[in-house]
Amino acid sequence: MNFVGSHILSVDQFDRSAMEQVFSVADEMTPYALRRRITRVLEGAILSNMFLEPSTRTRISFGCAFNMLGGEVRETTELKASALAKGESLHDTARVLSGYSDVIAMRHPDAGSVAEFAQASRVPVLNAGDGPNEHPSQALLDLYTIRKELKSRDRGVDGLRIAMVGDLKYGRAVHSLCKLLSLHDRIHYKLVAPPGLGLPGDMVERLREKDHQVSEYEQLEMGIDHVDIVYVTRTQEERFPSQEEADRYRGLFRLNQAIYTQHCEPNTVIMHPLPRDSRAQAQELDDDLIENPNLAIFRQTDNGVLVRMALFALVLDVADEVHNHAQPVTWYTAKRFT
Amino acid sequence: MNFVGSHILSVDQFDRSAMEQVFSVADEMTPYALRRRITRVLEGAILSNMFLEPSTRTRISFGCAFNMLGGEVRETTELKASALAKGESLHDTARVLSGYSDVIAMRHPDAGSVAEFAQASRVPVLNAGDGPNEHPSQALLDLYTIRKELKSRDRGVDGLRIAMVGDLKYGRAVHSLCKLLSLHDRIHYKLVAPPGLGLPGDMVERLREKDHQVSEYEQLEMGIDHVDIVYVTRTQEERFPSQEEADRYRGLFRLNQAIYTQHCEPNTVIMHPLPRDSRAQAQELDDDLIENPNLAIFRQTDNGVLVRMALFALVLDVADEVHNHAQPVTWYTAKRFT
Amino acid sequence: MNFVGSHILSVDQFDRSAMEQVFSVADEMTPYALRRRITRVLEGAILSNMFLEPSTRTRISFGCAFNMLGGEVRETTELKASALAKGESLHDTARVLSGYSDVIAMRHPDAGSVAEFAQASRVPVLNAGDGPNEHPSQALLDLYTIRKELKSRDRGVDGLRIAMVGDLKYGRAVHSLCKLLSLHDRIHYKLVAPPGLGLPGDMVERLREKDHQVSEYEQLEMGIDHVDIVYVTRTQEERFPSQEEADRYRGLFRLNQAIYTQHCEPNTVIMHPLPRDSRAQAQELDDDLIENPNLAIFRQTDNGVLVRMALFALVLDVADEVHNHAQPVTWYTAKRFT
Repeated sequence: MNFVGSHILSVDQFDRSAMEQVFSVADEMTPYALRRRITRVLEGAILSNMFLEPSTRTRISFGCAFNMLGGEVRETTELKASALAKGESLHDTARVLSGYSDVIAMRHPDAGSVAEFAQASRVPVLNAGDGPNEHPSQALLDLYTIRKELKSRDRGVDGLRIAMVGDLKYGRAVHSLCKLLSLHDRIHYKLVAPPGLGLPGDMVERLREKDHQVSEYEQLEMGIDHVDIVYVTRTQEERFPSQEEADRYRGLFRLNQAIYTQHCEPNTVIMHPLPRDSRAQAQELDDDLIENPNLAIFRQTDNGVLVRMALFALVLDVADEVHNHAQPVTWYTAKRFT
Repeated sequence: MNFVGSHILSVDQFDRSAMEQVFSVADEMTPYALRRRITRVLEGAILSNMFLEPSTRTRISFGCAFNMLGGEVRETTELKASALAKGESLHDTARVLSGYSDVIAMRHPDAGSVAEFAQASRVPVLNAGDGPNEHPSQALLDLYTIRKELKSRDRGVDGLRIAMVGDLKYGRAVHSLCKLLSLHDRIHYKLVAPPGLGLPGDMVERLREKDHQVSEYEQLEMGIDHVDIVYVTRTQEERFPSQEEADRYRGLFRLNQAIYTQHCEPNTVIMHPLPRDSRAQAQELDDDLIENPNLAIFRQTDNGVLVRMALFALVLDVADEVHNHAQPVTWYTAKRFT
Repeated sequence: MNFVGSHILSVDQFDRSAMEQVFSVADEMTPYALRRRITRVLEGAILSNMFLEPSTRTRISFGCAFNMLGGEVRETTELKASALAKGESLHDTARVLSGYSDVIAMRHPDAGSVAEFAQASRVPVLNAGDGPNEHPSQALLDLYTIRKELKSRDRGVDGLRIAMVGDLKYGRAVHSLCKLLSLHDRIHYKLVAPPGLGLPGDMVERLREKDHQVSEYEQLEMGIDHVDIVYVTRTQEERFPSQEEADRYRGLFRLNQAIYTQHCEPNTVIMHPLPRDSRAQAQELDDDLIENPNLAIFRQTDNGVLVRMALFALVLDVADEVHNHAQPVTWYTAKRFT
């Protein structure tokens, strides 16, 4: 895969070597994200950060990743504040915006919309989530985290045993991660979902066709034993036909320290694409896990900055130039990432 | 006209020599907007980009233009998120904001509000649209585009024949462009509007007083023959007393390739201030025009960045300094503006 | 008080020497805020400007202060656009965001929320207002303004006579300023509030315990004579149980030039935390005061930039480095701060 000038729209674009390339550049970004030094390699470049659906985490992660490379960020945070609300087509918006900026990150509520937008764009477009469809940078940061967590246990991804828990029907993070993992050898997917929210049948089929093992469970305790990773998701309430229907599923699976101790292997890594639902009725990950050193959820979001920096550096062809524009950090950074 | 430190509130401030000055600086901005090099001339300067009415295009265009000169941008995108919603006067907002930033671009739903704001501001204010009233940078970029398009046909603006199509009553872009064009010699305005949405009578009168020719039509086909430019506008639905009334006008005039071929001269330039309404019922410019090389609508928005860079450079008195702060571009820019 | 790496959550953190330190650094920031030169000391640093409640002034003031130190700003302007709306805890939001940025400024509608957020943050957090509770940078800029105004009259803060007028129950600016002033000697607080909106009794008690003088009035004219400062506030309508209840208080106290001339001493300084309510029914400060040289309300907001620059410089430990990264200003700045 040639990243330079490319759109990043789907995990389907990635093979193992392309992933390796992203992760290798992400590793190189570490001193900048940790603020041991800064780089000005993208000084003067502009990111249009187009978020046409509510988001804090991903929007700020993309924006900060671009700032950490030295670039500027212009943002849109709402559909209704945009020309699209006046009947403009995605094509026109793309043609116009791509005359203003050097790269575009876009989130949109409709599946396929970001790809349609990218077709008309004259600059690279990064899909930051198109409804229930794709969110490739999330899947990449999840896999990057899995690799780092396993590496600290002297393991690789081949032969991984992973439990995926919760809303596996609407969770695009799960869908994309399943695909990226399937590029590896002998993955054992243990799918834990309530009836009606299981992984779509065609996805299960494709994983099995690639000689991976897929087991399905309706009870949390059965699915989370003998795994390396427990990947928990929140119910994607905003994707349900009605709030009432979503409410039926709230709080069905809850992982807490007692269940973890009783059922998981001692080093099982706990992941979550975040945000996790911390309201009393939901709490798919209990607060009492916060001291568990295997809780990797904030290492995931920290890694997200590295992966997004890597994607920007690759599509804008500055991955090899980053260190040539490095400068010392002047300010206090001691508490960060402790 | 002395630009330094001035507010840019209305096209009425411009004479031919002031326009020439803007367009000449805009030409100088081309290598920066095309990303052949960057400039840091406004490093450390701050634009307050105050958009108190929905807008993507203009807001991001102003913001990116300022970034392309090396400056920083702080934004407000909503009236309700602002102190104005707590009963603050425009005077107070202006006094406060002008202590924070070096220049202010402002869009506001009410006619005259930006001028009122500017009176209290201690830094230059650029009108980015005050309701149905003025939008001078749009008119300047339209005229700049007309000049460039005609120049590539070895023509100047004097003697121009232009068809203006659509909602000529509420379209501020049309009003301002009419005024700027009227500073030239022997313009023939062919006005195509449905009954009730024609150009206001006093504007027509003023054009005729300046010895320009004005013809009015209620049918598209009659107005668009024998012209150099067809300038199409969308119905400004948000300015109508009710949505029902606006709906009556939707889709009345539609220019498509077949009509163009049959009625327009071969080189007639098609323009539109954008956004165009691409919903099936509207489509004042049909999708099938997209391959027509005379469709200049995206060259207009590209030119908008140049014109806004020029306005910033002129009011902040750095037009002559831009090249002295130039730097090479480090990143991939190949597809841009092809 | 050691500022480096600290959260700034409450005026209770400050003693006289800590205030002196802030004000001394704020003085040093003057040439940068006046645009006599720029500094790049925070080049590459990122502020997350999290405003989960409507605000223009404070949000842009924090953002511009950070830009004026050379840093970048990422923003959130709405609760509903944030992950908090999906049930995420403040703890999680803080852990995530503090992996993206170097410092966080946060406004939140709920008292105590910013302190809760700060506990989980790995980078310094500045409280930009947590509901009716605290707004320390406002109190600091108010006191900084009082000092500067009195200094130009050859006076210090000890022995100050100050009238506080309006909604003293919900106005957090008043509460915080009372506390900071109470660190000085022999303050005479003249409290002017309608029945039901007086300063909370425990606050009055604490001021008296520190040997300050507190007098309470229900009529404007009685409270504003023989004072150095009249500090007027708007009714915090958004804090009231209902709009009807808030309406009962609108316009009760109005200071205008005639009342000022008749009742105030000739040099009495007029202050207001802004925004003031300029609607005809409210107008706690009349427009006819605008020519009064003792009206310090816009000097307050100008000073706000200096104080916020100082807070950023102190918590990020660059106060001594600011001048070492100074550069000349390239653009027109003549009208500013005249």
